[in-house]
Amino acid sequence: MIITVTLNAALDVTYRVPSLRPHATHRVVDTIERPGGKGLNVARVLAALGHRTAVTGFAGGPAGGELRRLLAAVPRADLLTDALVPIAGATRRTVGVVDIAGGDTTMFNEPGPTVGPAEWASFLDVYRGLLTSGDARGVALCGSLPPGLPVGAYAELVREARTAGVYVLLDTSGEPLRRGLAARPDLIKPNAEELTWLTGFSDPARAARDARRRGARAVAASLGAQGILALDETGGWQAAPPGSLSGNPTGAGDSAVAGLLSGLAEGLPWPERLARAVALSAATVVAPAAGEYDRETYEKLLPRVQVTAAAP
Amino acid sequence: MIITVTLNAALDVTYRVPSLRPHATHRVVDTIERPGGKGLNVARVLAALGHRTAVTGFAGGPAGGELRRLLAAVPRADLLTDALVPIAGATRRTVGVVDIAGGDTTMFNEPGPTVGPAEWASFLDVYRGLLTSGDARGVALCGSLPPGLPVGAYAELVREARTAGVYVLLDTSGEPLRRGLAARPDLIKPNAEELTWLTGFSDPARAARDARRRGARAVAASLGAQGILALDETGGWQAAPPGSLSGNPTGAGDSAVAGLLSGLAEGLPWPERLARAVALSAATVVAPAAGEYDRETYEKLLPRVQVTAAAP
Repeated sequence: MIITVTLNAALDVTYRVPSLRPHATHRVVDTIERPGGKGLNVARVLAALGHRTAVTGFAGGPAGGELRRLLAAVPRADLLTDALVPIAGATRRTVGVVDIAGGDTTMFNEPGPTVGPAEWASFLDVYRGLLTSGDARGVALCGSLPPGLPVGAYAELVREARTAGVYVLLDTSGEPLRRGLAARPDLIKPNAEELTWLTGFSDPARAARDARRRGARAVAASLGAQGILALDETGGWQAAPPGSLSGNPTGAGDSAVAGLLSGLAEGLPWPERLARAVALSAATVVAPAAGEYDRETYEKLLPRVQVTAAAP
Repeated sequence: MIITVTLNAALDVTYRVPSLRPHATHRVVDTIERPGGKGLNVARVLAALGHRTAVTGFAGGPAGGELRRLLAAVPRADLLTDALVPIAGATRRTVGVVDIAGGDTTMFNEPGPTVGPAEWASFLDVYRGLLTSGDARGVALCGSLPPGLPVGAYAELVREARTAGVYVLLDTSGEPLRRGLAARPDLIKPNAEELTWLTGFSDPARAARDARRRGARAVAASLGAQGILALDETGGWQAAPPGSLSGNPTGAGDSAVAGLLSGLAEGLPWPERLARAVALSAATVVAPAAGEYDRETYEKLLPRVQVTAAAP
């Protein structure tokens, strides 16, 4: 089993409109709702890949109820365990308005509920229970922190995972990433911008080496069209997709996390884990629905991802 | 008791953002949710004016549940009876994005649920029960029809009200207005554009006379800053607000409907009903929250509305 943690889950709503005109009234052509937040995206891809996954974090209010209902209806939902912790506040919605003529999206993200100390304590109980079930092969800690949680929340979750001996991947940004790093996660997956913010270096290889010095056992830096650069104590690898792809990058990083963790759970070596992460990420960019991956593209790209050695 | 019918109710959501930029990601500053759809706006104003009001129409899904919860919490909710009929489909949301810098609003309106024949039959039972309760002083039929209902739905509701001897006001547009008119409602409240669409005449007085010939016993045409022009078999009146007002016109027409029906229920003659409708409408335009009316402005404007005789 793999655990995904989404402390600031969302109900992602997509509105398609013929053309977005500020100040006008738009009749929405159709509405799509899906469970959102980075850890939920990771969980959906893990289930599609055939991995049993426990989903935890917080859910509350009407959007939280809808999120749980939709989570139970995703493909291979039989592999997903809903371990979300109820909260008094209402789960946030994100509204993405797709301009059909222009082909791009305008996003409106609600701020999210405030999580209280008792709710955080309940979550920690559930989280410890999942870590010590004897069944956990890895945990992904994903996304932003909701209002009310301490900025060191991820550092605490990293420590709990290490105590339980469960491989822990941290995928967040800003101060929660900096604090979480100091607790020595097994892997972080920053993009180029996050890595530069964290280390002050704009060269990805140099920044990744610095991030390891700051506490990450391994770094997998997602570099957009250049693929993923990974470093750990045994070596370095650069995995690149075959040619450039156009589409919607929403969720591409989450698919990469699912690729890395599923590969780890299957005992694959780094080059194969990275090839899977890059192919899943690219297959997410080209998929028609934001945050989904196209299985046919994934299977076609997987053998064509080039993995080369890089300086560790 | 007054009955308001909202066949296509909505949960109105307002997002405030610092500045609306197409294709960008916006962090929503705050979120306001309120019960929406024209008949629900009318009911809220009627309750604030001290009138017992029964609210019917359809509600379903998460947004429908939220709408009912919020309806029970409006000012003077003790005067409101929730007689909404449950449906399998989900009540629509409208999302209004307020650009704080620019001061204006961009609207996104979901299409609304499809209402099935059995649900329409259940509604008709509830509607007949309210009409024949011995307590109904008037009914307002408000807004658009959801998918699935016959275009003659309002004509049927007008006929039922007339059979029960209850005064019926129809406030809709397009083909549902044209069909409803033929069933001879006591009053229609079109704006200038709807009146021109209906009759082909752009002069409001001529168009209102034509609308009476087509079936309306009385016409109260809302003409924006020019106030309201009313005609029935006994005469004609023009009621104008004192000076021009700037603000948000959302809900101004619904406040006018509440003014007209509450005045009728209190036995006020036409000039006083119109003065109330115009003052409530103006007090809605200047209110800070869309669709609410400002009581102080209303009480200040009411004695200053000018009502003059017009050609019947």
